[in-house]
Amino acid sequence: MPHVSESRFRVRYAETDQMGVVYYANYLVWMEIGRTDFCKTLGFNYKEMEREGAYMIVAEAACRYLAPARYDDPIVVETRLDRLSRRLVTFAYSIRHAETGRVLAEGKTVHVTIGADQKPRSIPKRYFELMGNGA
Amino acid sequence: MPHVSESRFRVRYAETDQMGVVYYANYLVWMEIGRTDFCKTLGFNYKEMEREGAYMIVAEAACRYLAPARYDDPIVVETRLDRLSRRLVTFAYSIRHAETGRVLAEGKTVHVTIGADQKPRSIPKRYFELMGNGA
Amino acid sequence: MPHVSESRFRVRYAETDQMGVVYYANYLVWMEIGRTDFCKTLGFNYKEMEREGAYMIVAEAACRYLAPARYDDPIVVETRLDRLSRRLVTFAYSIRHAETGRVLAEGKTVHVTIGADQKPRSIPKRYFELMGNGA
Amino acid sequence: MPHVSESRFRVRYAETDQMGVVYYANYLVWMEIGRTDFCKTLGFNYKEMEREGAYMIVAEAACRYLAPARYDDPIVVETRLDRLSRRLVTFAYSIRHAETGRVLAEGKTVHVTIGADQKPRSIPKRYFELMGNGA
Repeated sequence: MPHVSESRFRVRYAETDQMGVVYYANYLVWMEIGRTDFCKTLGFNYKEMEREGAYMIVAEAACRYLAPARYDDPIVVETRLDRLSRRLVTFAYSIRHAETGRVLAEGKTVHVTIGADQKPRSIPKRYFELMGNGA
Repeated sequence: MPHVSESRFRVRYAETDQMGVVYYANYLVWMEIGRTDFCKTLGFNYKEMEREGAYMIVAEAACRYLAPARYDDPIVVETRLDRLSRRLVTFAYSIRHAETGRVLAEGKTVHVTIGADQKPRSIPKRYFELMGNGA
Repeated sequence: MPHVSESRFRVRYAETDQMGVVYYANYLVWMEIGRTDFCKTLGFNYKEMEREGAYMIVAEAACRYLAPARYDDPIVVETRLDRLSRRLVTFAYSIRHAETGRVLAEGKTVHVTIGADQKPRSIPKRYFELMGNGA
Repeated sequence: MPHVSESRFRVRYAETDQMGVVYYANYLVWMEIGRTDFCKTLGFNYKEMEREGAYMIVAEAACRYLAPARYDDPIVVETRLDRLSRRLVTFAYSIRHAETGRVLAEGKTVHVTIGADQKPRSIPKRYFELMGNGA
């Protein structure tokens, strides 16, 4: 069974737009919260990985918007690993209304790892193994 | 020849993150600037369309990140219509460094039109025809 | 004793800038989270107030930045009512690192209430009384 | 006569909130655009100053909101130096609707300079002198 992490928070007023719903770019911020929590539940902090000179940059992001989220709605982001190799990591996200369970959006992000020199490098062994536990 | 609009601005400090580059969600904000300008160059203001009770909501968004953008970089967003029907509009974007011409990101957004009642409706005739001129 | 609400969350990657710390405008977003929670702990949802046609707009905001917040830091926003009249509400905020207790920022916002017609109006009686309980 | 720089742009859809106006924290982002342009009109790029290991961090920010800004409104930010010493710089901002000239907001930010070691330092001589020309 693949590991799934859950991130919970409420929609901020700042995240709404004049349509009265959450502005579409903010779902990518929520996916990032999902990634951060996913790593934590696997036993590491993405922060440490950056301190060791390995940066997971985003190569691709995609989102399908199914239903609007509104101010103060309770949100849950479910994050799981979709693909994992030493060079490439893909996360998949399901963003739901935490009370109704309704899926609001589904997303995917593809990441490559670079070093402090901005050049591609493989994921440090320790983090790769920890991630493998969530695959 | 399909119509292509150009939007020009500089990267804001607010748009960078601790990696020293533009945070990935902000490219979707830039695409929205592109859409706004694209409509204007076709002769209408998206603002008016909302005032007439037609809202173009985002159904899908995708972005490929090719090279980082940095604080104060001059950016140009090229926007064009990828597909157009009364129910569905797809925009395609090319985000470049305005001086070097280097492509930083490529994106796509798919939109459906809804009314003030949140229900799907077709694009008002006037706007559909104006958009058709840019296809 | 004046009522003090506590809002807890972690710093998002999106909230950092290239200096490696939280971008200064985001503290105002955190104050808004504080206001939302303050109202809830007094027994009402600001959302309802808007539905009844009363909008608390910001007339003034100020923030003193004392120490930087960093990615993934646990934050607590303490919110209290500083002044309350039917026309004017002032909130005061203390933003701390939730583990060390260190004060990162202190802020204040002044609000006036307007109606759906954008004109000043007094705070609806029910909400005014509930707020009075927190003064 | 003190130097005043002008920054011009249009309100982004992303900057609005469900009240239909620009969310209050975004005015601080606009002030930062003002600062960037102010430095440029004095002949230097803030970016260079950071490269030389001098970071102007925000110690205080304040804003008075006088009239709402709306999606696609043309905005002009007028920035001037309010106080200047080797240790402390204060900027003042007037944010207007570029067509009507109406003042939408007035703000102030106080900055101190720190080094790469996060400790206070004075503004590098070259930048201090250039700023002095705008005082």
